[in-house]
Amino acid sequence: MKLDDIKALRTSDGESILLLVLDGLGGLPGEPGGPTELEAAGTPNLDALAATGDLGLHLPVGQGITPGSGPGHLALFGYDPLEYRIGRGALEALGVEFDLQPGDVAIRANLCTVDERGRVVDRRAGRIPTEEAIPVCEALDRIEVPGARVFVQSVKEHRALIVVRSEEASGARIGDTDPGREGVEPLPVVAADGESEPAARVMRAWLNGVGDAVGDRTKANMVLLRGFSQLPAWPRFPDVFGLESLAIAAYPMYRGVARLVGMDATAVPEGPEHLVGALEQHGAGRDFVFLHVKATDKAGEDGDFDAKVAAIEAADAVIPDLRAAFPGVFLVTGDHSTPAIMRSHSWHPVPFLLAGGPGRGGSSAHGGFGERACRQGSLGLIRGCELMPLAMARAGRLSKFGA
Amino acid sequence: MKLDDIKALRTSDGESILLLVLDGLGGLPGEPGGPTELEAAGTPNLDALAATGDLGLHLPVGQGITPGSGPGHLALFGYDPLEYRIGRGALEALGVEFDLQPGDVAIRANLCTVDERGRVVDRRAGRIPTEEAIPVCEALDRIEVPGARVFVQSVKEHRALIVVRSEEASGARIGDTDPGREGVEPLPVVAADGESEPAARVMRAWLNGVGDAVGDRTKANMVLLRGFSQLPAWPRFPDVFGLESLAIAAYPMYRGVARLVGMDATAVPEGPEHLVGALEQHGAGRDFVFLHVKATDKAGEDGDFDAKVAAIEAADAVIPDLRAAFPGVFLVTGDHSTPAIMRSHSWHPVPFLLAGGPGRGGSSAHGGFGERACRQGSLGLIRGCELMPLAMARAGRLSKFGA
Repeated sequence: MKLDDIKALRTSDGESILLLVLDGLGGLPGEPGGPTELEAAGTPNLDALAATGDLGLHLPVGQGITPGSGPGHLALFGYDPLEYRIGRGALEALGVEFDLQPGDVAIRANLCTVDERGRVVDRRAGRIPTEEAIPVCEALDRIEVPGARVFVQSVKEHRALIVVRSEEASGARIGDTDPGREGVEPLPVVAADGESEPAARVMRAWLNGVGDAVGDRTKANMVLLRGFSQLPAWPRFPDVFGLESLAIAAYPMYRGVARLVGMDATAVPEGPEHLVGALEQHGAGRDFVFLHVKATDKAGEDGDFDAKVAAIEAADAVIPDLRAAFPGVFLVTGDHSTPAIMRSHSWHPVPFLLAGGPGRGGSSAHGGFGERACRQGSLGLIRGCELMPLAMARAGRLSKFGA
Repeated sequence: MKLDDIKALRTSDGESILLLVLDGLGGLPGEPGGPTELEAAGTPNLDALAATGDLGLHLPVGQGITPGSGPGHLALFGYDPLEYRIGRGALEALGVEFDLQPGDVAIRANLCTVDERGRVVDRRAGRIPTEEAIPVCEALDRIEVPGARVFVQSVKEHRALIVVRSEEASGARIGDTDPGREGVEPLPVVAADGESEPAARVMRAWLNGVGDAVGDRTKANMVLLRGFSQLPAWPRFPDVFGLESLAIAAYPMYRGVARLVGMDATAVPEGPEHLVGALEQHGAGRDFVFLHVKATDKAGEDGDFDAKVAAIEAADAVIPDLRAAFPGVFLVTGDHSTPAIMRSHSWHPVPFLLAGGPGRGGSSAHGGFGERACRQGSLGLIRGCELMPLAMARAGRLSKFGA
């Protein structure tokens, strides 16, 4: 089902929808035959919802494909990540909450070190500490190019964001200048089409100013440019689904992806306990709220099985208050799996729980909310981008297809 | 997920992948309520792997669609058979290991019998025995056409392969000359576009030479042409997946499909016991080896339930040696089902077993490796072409999609 089709079917009223994302929720057994993190966690509130709601597994991108956070969340918002792709520069802009405008060209930049003949000797400037990179980026941000403003913002260590805002309209089909190896000069800035030539011209002029800006620095004295991209012109989530929408998240990246599809976004301190107050305060009048919990993914990335269990339990503890603050359809899931034993995102299908609205309910021989129960759940294995239509249907917000 | 997307994600190293294809593995109960061939077979080695690995069912083409051997194997190699289609002529060339070159036009030919007025009286020349067909094909192979070489090779009974290798570049959009019924003349050779006219012209000239070549024969004295096609310009398996790849198979057809996607291929005598030595001898330095066992399919086609059970058991017996010779990720499945009670390929989903690498594992109430256990397996029902991404992920060979 394409977003246009959904939009044609959605009604103007219905129940509210609350999406609780426990980042990296899906897991693997800590030892062969043992429970996963979610199965090991004591989750009385999720278990009670699982007994009356519906369970299943979703694939954010596809079989065997490990999703990044951007594609994982886009899928949960109903956008097929294989169809809706974000460039790396635009994603970097989201991550630091740069207010990217339509027409801006965003670039992921690496501070690097070149020798006196301009050859790259370190592609990451020795992974320069962030506090040392900030003044370099500030100097680079002051480079002037006629007819354009070139923003430079430090991200982390050697990584920076560059945004070209030009008087002349420009595309972003421009090749990376990172040669991918050391001992050679950076590649020239080459536009793949005439439409992208204006931004390429700006960046050539800007690169000519780098030498003066960095002065006599012998480290982090040049910049490699990658992932030229723009804000995509996608259908807006509030228009597609007809939902007044709000994202509540502690990390800029997740507010950024929500804003990318047209949701409003509010920052909160980290920790599920802060979500309740924020939801009570900002949820009024909203049809859809997306809540983001980071701790589950962080524990998984750290390889800390027990910490992930604890993070799931902490989220479970606030669920009654979340439901009280925002009744209606309730969807709990992750944007991907992050098994502690892998210390990374993984391709394994992600458990989900849908409560509220009519459903067939409890089919699992396994009790509670866990990977095995979800595998046997009434909703089976579905694509991540199919969750929004399911939640919409349960909220009474999708009319009949055809007469 | 398209092959281009996979290629963009694949890494340059990781574990090895061993694909063991038991041709026509999927079956049906020999009697209502009874076990399938695979369930009836004593397979201690597969059962042990099933206890720790992951099970599922795959559909090579789609629901209700019975796959031929070509599409079935293409799916296992990760190529969606609905997108990657092989012409019948090219498939015939693979089957006899004709060294088809880019630009060659391959044609599936039937020896037929025409009367003195040129009307087809038997479209298959009385299913002429192969040994009688061979001298006819040899005579036809000697027909000379200016500017081209027209190879003719006997396949089996009345079936032959014709390959046009022309000095002039040509397409292969040329209609069949088989009128589909008797009592009428063969259809003329008609190209559907100008690009295909050169090969059509060659074949018209060649057909004019058939009369002299067959002399005074009153049977098998003409040729019907079908399935004009060329070597497809597909992405190569070793490039897409980044795998040094080898096929080991007794039958030319399976080596041919493997070569079609760019794998190397080695012939072995029939029987799973020969696979072990071949794998030990030729597997070194390979990232991916495809092993083919024909006996399962053959027994199914013969309608011999017990012989299919025995063929599965014989394959099971060599599995420890295969695993020892080529450790890493191990995928065991079929290219389609061939239930003995149907005496033919069928559309039923095919059981598969994935071992090695991280997985959620054992969920089935049914023990061992069989259709019912696979239906309840942790990996569910998937498309055949999704197996390679899953195997790649488990081998640690796919990086994250998006940041």
